[in-house]
Amino acid sequence: MAETRVVKIGVVKNGNLGACPVLDLIFDERADRDDVDFRVLGSGAKLGQVQCVETMEKMLAFQPELILMISPNAALPGPKEGRDMIQGIPTIIYSDMPAKKAVEELEAKGMGYILCGADSMIGARRPFLDGVEMSLFNANLLTVLSITGVVNCIQDEVEKAVAAIKAGETPELPRLVLDMETAIKYARFTNPYAQAKAMAAFEIASRVAAIDVKACFQLKEKEDYMPLLATAHEMMQVAAKLAWDAREIEKIGDHVVRRPHHREGQLLMKKGFMDKEE
Amino acid sequence: MAETRVVKIGVVKNGNLGACPVLDLIFDERADRDDVDFRVLGSGAKLGQVQCVETMEKMLAFQPELILMISPNAALPGPKEGRDMIQGIPTIIYSDMPAKKAVEELEAKGMGYILCGADSMIGARRPFLDGVEMSLFNANLLTVLSITGVVNCIQDEVEKAVAAIKAGETPELPRLVLDMETAIKYARFTNPYAQAKAMAAFEIASRVAAIDVKACFQLKEKEDYMPLLATAHEMMQVAAKLAWDAREIEKIGDHVVRRPHHREGQLLMKKGFMDKEE
Amino acid sequence: MAETRVVKIGVVKNGNLGACPVLDLIFDERADRDDVDFRVLGSGAKLGQVQCVETMEKMLAFQPELILMISPNAALPGPKEGRDMIQGIPTIIYSDMPAKKAVEELEAKGMGYILCGADSMIGARRPFLDGVEMSLFNANLLTVLSITGVVNCIQDEVEKAVAAIKAGETPELPRLVLDMETAIKYARFTNPYAQAKAMAAFEIASRVAAIDVKACFQLKEKEDYMPLLATAHEMMQVAAKLAWDAREIEKIGDHVVRRPHHREGQLLMKKGFMDKEE
Amino acid sequence: MAETRVVKIGVVKNGNLGACPVLDLIFDERADRDDVDFRVLGSGAKLGQVQCVETMEKMLAFQPELILMISPNAALPGPKEGRDMIQGIPTIIYSDMPAKKAVEELEAKGMGYILCGADSMIGARRPFLDGVEMSLFNANLLTVLSITGVVNCIQDEVEKAVAAIKAGETPELPRLVLDMETAIKYARFTNPYAQAKAMAAFEIASRVAAIDVKACFQLKEKEDYMPLLATAHEMMQVAAKLAWDAREIEKIGDHVVRRPHHREGQLLMKKGFMDKEE
Amino acid sequence: MAETRVVKIGVVKNGNLGACPVLDLIFDERADRDDVDFRVLGSGAKLGQVQCVETMEKMLAFQPELILMISPNAALPGPKEGRDMIQGIPTIIYSDMPAKKAVEELEAKGMGYILCGADSMIGARRPFLDGVEMSLFNANLLTVLSITGVVNCIQDEVEKAVAAIKAGETPELPRLVLDMETAIKYARFTNPYAQAKAMAAFEIASRVAAIDVKACFQLKEKEDYMPLLATAHEMMQVAAKLAWDAREIEKIGDHVVRRPHHREGQLLMKKGFMDKEE
Amino acid sequence: MAETRVVKIGVVKNGNLGACPVLDLIFDERADRDDVDFRVLGSGAKLGQVQCVETMEKMLAFQPELILMISPNAALPGPKEGRDMIQGIPTIIYSDMPAKKAVEELEAKGMGYILCGADSMIGARRPFLDGVEMSLFNANLLTVLSITGVVNCIQDEVEKAVAAIKAGETPELPRLVLDMETAIKYARFTNPYAQAKAMAAFEIASRVAAIDVKACFQLKEKEDYMPLLATAHEMMQVAAKLAWDAREIEKIGDHVVRRPHHREGQLLMKKGFMDKEE
Repeated sequence: MAETRVVKIGVVKNGNLGACPVLDLIFDERADRDDVDFRVLGSGAKLGQVQCVETMEKMLAFQPELILMISPNAALPGPKEGRDMIQGIPTIIYSDMPAKKAVEELEAKGMGYILCGADSMIGARRPFLDGVEMSLFNANLLTVLSITGVVNCIQDEVEKAVAAIKAGETPELPRLVLDMETAIKYARFTNPYAQAKAMAAFEIASRVAAIDVKACFQLKEKEDYMPLLATAHEMMQVAAKLAWDAREIEKIGDHVVRRPHHREGQLLMKKGFMDKEE
Repeated sequence: MAETRVVKIGVVKNGNLGACPVLDLIFDERADRDDVDFRVLGSGAKLGQVQCVETMEKMLAFQPELILMISPNAALPGPKEGRDMIQGIPTIIYSDMPAKKAVEELEAKGMGYILCGADSMIGARRPFLDGVEMSLFNANLLTVLSITGVVNCIQDEVEKAVAAIKAGETPELPRLVLDMETAIKYARFTNPYAQAKAMAAFEIASRVAAIDVKACFQLKEKEDYMPLLATAHEMMQVAAKLAWDAREIEKIGDHVVRRPHHREGQLLMKKGFMDKEE
Repeated sequence: MAETRVVKIGVVKNGNLGACPVLDLIFDERADRDDVDFRVLGSGAKLGQVQCVETMEKMLAFQPELILMISPNAALPGPKEGRDMIQGIPTIIYSDMPAKKAVEELEAKGMGYILCGADSMIGARRPFLDGVEMSLFNANLLTVLSITGVVNCIQDEVEKAVAAIKAGETPELPRLVLDMETAIKYARFTNPYAQAKAMAAFEIASRVAAIDVKACFQLKEKEDYMPLLATAHEMMQVAAKLAWDAREIEKIGDHVVRRPHHREGQLLMKKGFMDKEE
Repeated sequence: MAETRVVKIGVVKNGNLGACPVLDLIFDERADRDDVDFRVLGSGAKLGQVQCVETMEKMLAFQPELILMISPNAALPGPKEGRDMIQGIPTIIYSDMPAKKAVEELEAKGMGYILCGADSMIGARRPFLDGVEMSLFNANLLTVLSITGVVNCIQDEVEKAVAAIKAGETPELPRLVLDMETAIKYARFTNPYAQAKAMAAFEIASRVAAIDVKACFQLKEKEDYMPLLATAHEMMQVAAKLAWDAREIEKIGDHVVRRPHHREGQLLMKKGFMDKEE
Repeated sequence: MAETRVVKIGVVKNGNLGACPVLDLIFDERADRDDVDFRVLGSGAKLGQVQCVETMEKMLAFQPELILMISPNAALPGPKEGRDMIQGIPTIIYSDMPAKKAVEELEAKGMGYILCGADSMIGARRPFLDGVEMSLFNANLLTVLSITGVVNCIQDEVEKAVAAIKAGETPELPRLVLDMETAIKYARFTNPYAQAKAMAAFEIASRVAAIDVKACFQLKEKEDYMPLLATAHEMMQVAAKLAWDAREIEKIGDHVVRRPHHREGQLLMKKGFMDKEE
Repeated sequence: MAETRVVKIGVVKNGNLGACPVLDLIFDERADRDDVDFRVLGSGAKLGQVQCVETMEKMLAFQPELILMISPNAALPGPKEGRDMIQGIPTIIYSDMPAKKAVEELEAKGMGYILCGADSMIGARRPFLDGVEMSLFNANLLTVLSITGVVNCIQDEVEKAVAAIKAGETPELPRLVLDMETAIKYARFTNPYAQAKAMAAFEIASRVAAIDVKACFQLKEKEDYMPLLATAHEMMQVAAKLAWDAREIEKIGDHVVRRPHHREGQLLMKKGFMDKEE
């Protein structure tokens, strides 16, 4: 039996986005895959130039064959300097809407990107945001991204690249700006009302960004920004609930899509709970 | 004005636990803290010896003053070899119940530990677990940990160590096995029924482990293990809902505890929404 | 005892908006008020020029002292021709966001206006919208408007004009474009999280408009517009639920604001359920 | 192509009932129908003889071919004097249970009627009912009427009359007293439990009337009537929730009945979300 | 110390009512009371004359000092024959609304009674009612009775009789027909909206009887009675939910009334969760 | 036609368990069965030796052909003395987990048993448990037992014994310790997610026992045991909700299993609401 070709994948996390917690895990959800080897490097909540350069240096030392970079606003100087250091390694950037300003540069560099509208900024003001509020916002956001197609999208697009690399081909990298209509297709809902609830969840989550930006950067008075912060986080919470409602409908119809990885790396698929994944 | 003493903190993640996504973020939730510098290194879903040794090597090169290690079952050979490499650096292990087997060794090494009963194993069988199911389990688990006191506990205990290091003292490290009664104290609920709902959430989440262990390791037939996997994940989902119910009650009474960090590192506290954190 | 001065108020409804059902009723909620006399004239769902002119002609025959006009997009030719016919009668226009194009004209005419961001367009496509779907959208929308401050705003602003007319003064007319921050002040919430839920409801309802406009006017294929229509109506439904959640919190605290009219017309106020309105 | 025969329909609203907001709209839900022309005349919350006579005078001036009259308790002198003025125009009365006293008279006049048990009286006492409470009661009631078959019944029965008039025939007018069993047939549920929930909603809504009548007319002390008023409105709220539960079940099965109007007036029908209406 | 006077109480259950499961237990909820001794005798689901006479014979052999009799429709021949056998023992009948026909007889016999409007008949038709449906109906009904004051009422009134017997006095027996207004007073709610929800629950539960009577005794065709049965049980389910909503509000305010028995028999009371019962 | 053979069944209840309220009723849910005659004898909340012996004496006087005994912890001296008195009558014990200590003895006596893990001890401490809290715990527990297969299990196993007795055969008696996996099979769910929710409900209910045992017997301080009691009852409440969620899913799919008794005693079965039981 031929030895499995193992692809070395580096994940660089600077600052936090909703997809951060699972960006590596969703490619090896049961830790049993033989054909990929992940290294994850991060600088915590910060994404200054120092941090971004340092993490990239260490990552390049690992000699990855594919790099996934994730950061809020990839158009900021920190993430940009990080990716300026990459030479000849296929790279996919996952970021949010402000990163649209960097699209031209990314395309010029031949990098792929997935910019996700629902991956909204958190309400980062001291009288509001502590560790628990932050964790809960991220749990809600992760729920939305999981159910509305974003997690599926990242999986599908990155796996295409991995497969090409395994096959010795040059991977075609994604160039995607995800709104509710593009994201939802990856989720493959069966029930149209479940799909509508998921789309609504995506849309509501997407609106959080503008409110938090206003509350964090434009308003000065606590009396003004506090209500907006609470509003934004309530919206993310209701978006998560709505996303769950969507998934529950698919459960009731017994057609939850499951796309587990085969041990050798293929993305399988099944719908009925007791069906075999294929 | 005196320059801020910056503490270098290394976070090592091998494999995944519920607290992984936020183990670094909860110490700098708004990315504005001047007194800490985090580096995060991880090996993705895997925690074999190769991965654990390699990530620790890189981490030690960063010369951290405090190390946080997180992995499922810290008693496994991988995590153990990783921590065997640490010399003279204060270290806190966060892990789950199977790690209780390593407690003696950890204490002998002078390491601190927080072992959390609610941070249960996921239902890792291919016909059930794909990227989306995995993300959702983690989002639910993170919700439970956030509301039932676990996130607060990690914050409190690690911050004590950081403060000691900043003061040039030898930090006292935690030795904690969290069950619902020990965890809940860190959450500082006001309403007794909210607290009871949170404790119930912790307890239900804790029961997930035994079911998933049985389904993953003891049962062979799909007909036997699939119902258990679905049951375990339903329990985590209902635990997350119950935790949210608890928090909503505190919102209704306007006494949600918030413990944001001051820019200079102190853990502040407030209850009323428009109160000042102090 | 002096005879009550009765103010004759005409309400003109062309086409339908969320506030239509109650625009007259909220000024005399128990049908026992002695100081106002309402006439309501409408053209059903249609707001062409013929209908708008005819209803205004009839309304002017009633010789009202105050006119309230309500229609979607007050910048359309129909409503504009209607209001062109008004001479020297204080008039307040209630409309939605597209009516912002008419603001200059309204101000030039000395008319007041309340344009409400949450009063979004319905999903008017035949394979989706029937009588029941339409009624339900309106019930949800009315719920949002009632709880988030819009109904209170209309009441407050129109009552000011009525009081001036009763006093023989020239009324000052409102010039308001309602977003979540301006509307919510009229609702006078006590609990900050209840207020945040209500603001979130307003914001979500406001987003419905853009989606329905795209689905109704920009997309041609049923496969494309149907998912958007369902999404928009799910959003309005979840906005209504969230608004109710907000009100339930105020009930739990026993501080629901109630502003009933005195029989002689004053707008009273109370909070505790068994309090006296004053 | 033959010119469309346009039927002139007059809607007279004296006082308020739950079906008021949509009595005109449900016949032209997308404002695109060519074969009907509606005029709506109302007297706001009041239904005294003066108001009823005046609105009917104006309505007759419009020379409608079909008149829909809606008022609470059509047996009151006001509505009766109004309809006494009608000569030779087909007329359908929509009212509530107290109107049963007028049935003999209506039949003697050859008028049709739909008396709806669920369209219950509101809790009209000053310490309880303000504009917001009133709007919310109406939103809940409209929800119940929409889902439990009442809106469908009005549509079906009125459309039969319109079709007859278009065809130059004498319309057969409905003689219906709606209880949960007669109403539900018009809603055409597929799932039996959804139907049961809708019937329960209708029944609960119907019980509100007796409680509000007692609270408004029989009890003198605030301590006595306030609890009843709150109870009655809680019942209408839970009835609305139950009605929504019923509709959600039909969504989950993807067999929501939709009965949109064709542009030329036919009432079409579809069930599956992406089906074609026929 | 004087020996405790132990009162012998006999509970006779013929057929089933909602209060049956707890009629004995609510007087000794922790099985630690020294001053009462209960015997319970029942004939299962049946309440024919044979069964009622036989159970009463056995009960009288126990020589109880107080008899509680519970059965549906105490006006039926079976229960009547049972109570005809009682001579000189204070007796309290708990039954439902049809038992009102027996009130005169009961009063003539000097017996007390509590007839409860919410304790409605079950939907007893074979294609609908099996053991599970029956159990669930009873669980829902018991929930309603517990929260809306009925359980408290039975406790209060029976304890008065027990106390009199202990004191060697002739007990005054209750003569109560419970509707929502009389029952709710025993529940001692603090929040007025919680109370309203509980009253609504009682009222909805009360309406179940008429529907089930129609479905069980008046309708012949399965197509006719099945929808009514499902409706009635949905109503009981929603009543139970509403009752829980009421109790949750009292939890949120931390003023749940608790009335535990002292070991020596006194009915104590407390509100705050950590308060002492007194 | 041959006369029906009537089996005399005695039900002995000492102390209270969750299944107590319906242990007799589930065999004759519509009180119309001709082939069984039940007598029920109980000692209320207490299960001391005096009470158990006395109730058994009376029961034996009835000369039952089958005895069902129900009590908490059947290994206690009271219940044991009770069953020691039985000679040659087929007997089935229903009890909870502590009764496992009596299994050997039961088998030696040739008695059947069903020990149910979910039938957990109540939180019996005076500052917490009053009549209402006790009733609600039992209502929730009964809900869990009804939906998760326990009621079906008792029915199936007891009916087998009854059928054997009717046929003049020696009944085979059950020897069952019910955990979530054994119980759920009796419930015959169609939807796998509904089944998982029911299993989760069973498991959560089962965990209540350990917490209440600790709170009632091991902890001394009110500050320590009160939070545990509230937690345990919240768990039972959420278990009941989850069980209902499971049943609602089966309703939505219209495949609720119903197993009504034929008048002559057979246990029939149906799934579709309008199907015929067979």
